[in-house]
Amino acid sequence: MTPLSRLLGTRLPLIQAPMAGAQGSAMAVAVSRAGALGSLPCAMLTPEGIQAELNAITRQTDRPYNLNFFCHTPPVPDPAQEARWREVLAPYHAEHGIDPTQIVAGPGRAPFSHAVCDAIESFRPPVVSFHFGLPASDLLARVKGWGATVLSSATTVAEAQWLAEHGADAVIAQGLEAGGHRGHFLSHELTAQLGTLALVPQVVRAVGCPVIAAGGIADAEGVRAAMALGASGVQVGTAYLLCPEATTSAVHRAALQSLAAPHTALTNLFSGRPARGIVNRVMRELGPLNAAAPAFPLATAAVAPLRTRAEAQGLDDFSPLWAGQNASGCRPVPAAEVTAALARGL
Amino acid sequence: MTPLSRLLGTRLPLIQAPMAGAQGSAMAVAVSRAGALGSLPCAMLTPEGIQAELNAITRQTDRPYNLNFFCHTPPVPDPAQEARWREVLAPYHAEHGIDPTQIVAGPGRAPFSHAVCDAIESFRPPVVSFHFGLPASDLLARVKGWGATVLSSATTVAEAQWLAEHGADAVIAQGLEAGGHRGHFLSHELTAQLGTLALVPQVVRAVGCPVIAAGGIADAEGVRAAMALGASGVQVGTAYLLCPEATTSAVHRAALQSLAAPHTALTNLFSGRPARGIVNRVMRELGPLNAAAPAFPLATAAVAPLRTRAEAQGLDDFSPLWAGQNASGCRPVPAAEVTAALARGL
Repeated sequence: MTPLSRLLGTRLPLIQAPMAGAQGSAMAVAVSRAGALGSLPCAMLTPEGIQAELNAITRQTDRPYNLNFFCHTPPVPDPAQEARWREVLAPYHAEHGIDPTQIVAGPGRAPFSHAVCDAIESFRPPVVSFHFGLPASDLLARVKGWGATVLSSATTVAEAQWLAEHGADAVIAQGLEAGGHRGHFLSHELTAQLGTLALVPQVVRAVGCPVIAAGGIADAEGVRAAMALGASGVQVGTAYLLCPEATTSAVHRAALQSLAAPHTALTNLFSGRPARGIVNRVMRELGPLNAAAPAFPLATAAVAPLRTRAEAQGLDDFSPLWAGQNASGCRPVPAAEVTAALARGL
Repeated sequence: MTPLSRLLGTRLPLIQAPMAGAQGSAMAVAVSRAGALGSLPCAMLTPEGIQAELNAITRQTDRPYNLNFFCHTPPVPDPAQEARWREVLAPYHAEHGIDPTQIVAGPGRAPFSHAVCDAIESFRPPVVSFHFGLPASDLLARVKGWGATVLSSATTVAEAQWLAEHGADAVIAQGLEAGGHRGHFLSHELTAQLGTLALVPQVVRAVGCPVIAAGGIADAEGVRAAMALGASGVQVGTAYLLCPEATTSAVHRAALQSLAAPHTALTNLFSGRPARGIVNRVMRELGPLNAAAPAFPLATAAVAPLRTRAEAQGLDDFSPLWAGQNASGCRPVPAAEVTAALARGL
């Protein structure tokens, strides 16, 4: 038992990173059963959907698990920006026979809220992690009220200090190598974000709470390196993407095993916020960071139908192929096996 | 003795990174005497200057040392691009009373050449490292002809494979955290470059030669992490910048010890090629990567007089403040002490 595994209630100080769109309760259950902390990404689920997944988890294991939420402030939709975005996407809509007037600009990912809190409170989830900072203090107080351990991601030393001062029990130091959405919330300046090897030791020195290293960790050697840097534990996502318990799409699985996998980039095309994924056609053609993309999470609506059409043809041209900079740990084996392989570095 | 220290001829598998403009023979001598490999950056020296420094090194130590060269292809000057660059800099020239017609557009940093080879051959330098790939095969053959160990930097797995196949005896895996010039040479796509924690293990698996980790390593813990990733040794630069043996300028030393140090960015403003330095006024105002900057190394000429004027006033507004993403190892102590501290992680 380490201080972090005591905080998480797990045998291993190892967290399976929540990956919205690529996994649900099955992955969380498998990882928690294997002695690490399985995570359920909730950002794309309704309160009822979260409850259904929570029922599935608690039916299958009594081990601790983690619920992950985004806590962004939903933007005010900007019709001019949305029009600009649709203009940029118009050739693609035409190519795929999509009538843009039929695209409903929806709110997309919803932030953590009292309604969500109402839905999960009776389960008293043992660990709750947030992305993009922390929720408002009354919401955070509710979560802490049932005794949950609270985690959040920092991409800079300043963000780590802010999280530690505002109620995080442990900080996830998310290095630039990490796949999926960047967790920055104090500064949107991407150059301020550090690689894992530089970030972790500086965060460890800056905060008093345990630090969890994330980004670029794919195997036992990576875990050992993170622990050498002073981390109390690690969070790993990409290495789990080919597991049978993952819901990773066929095109996403293929990309992870292709020669394209080593070239990832931060892109705002799929949601409006920078997230790391394998470079595909739309990232190449529009540039991975395009100023026309509406604010998070509004960019998704106009891209989503392109993704659906393309994937139906087996093409990954418009799919978010989230992955970190080290996909070498991806193997089509059960999540328990990935967990055991990583645990050898602890 | 490790395979790498045998190849380098040193007691420690630890290289002091060559840092043109911030150190000369004094640093190389101090580090080599301390049991690691001291480096002499030669890119900004004339053949006669290199000989003088070589005399200084060989007078003071009989331990192995490293000579570092750039091996870029000098660009054909583009008057339109130069005019665009001067237009961008015009307000600064006016502010500092600089007459732009008096600025001589010079060639700046020269690549490794037969003339340089002639100048160094009689010294038979034991280790020669290159940045931006490797020199032409006849030049490389001359260097290998006197028995030198040849190193070069890779920023991607593909570059590491290329170097190993084209004659490098060991590859420096330069993670994105590293300070100074990026060593990329196969692709100028910056998104393709990896953080150290992701790059090192993938390079180790891809090449048969020893791999030297660089980028974000500031102390014994960083060294231990790099070795855990499978590196055969490490190269460290930033941590040496405050040493008395360094020629780091006053404004550069001040920046490294200031609250500005954690925010670095890749910038092409000072040379035309992306290099990592602490964000200063000109990087903030022009953007760290500006399309108006002429090709490497031609951007330097029109910025240099601004740097001179500003530094005379104690301002770092136009100075390249090269630094990696982890300046926490910088201390104003002798280079031997920095070396000993790093060696504790081996």
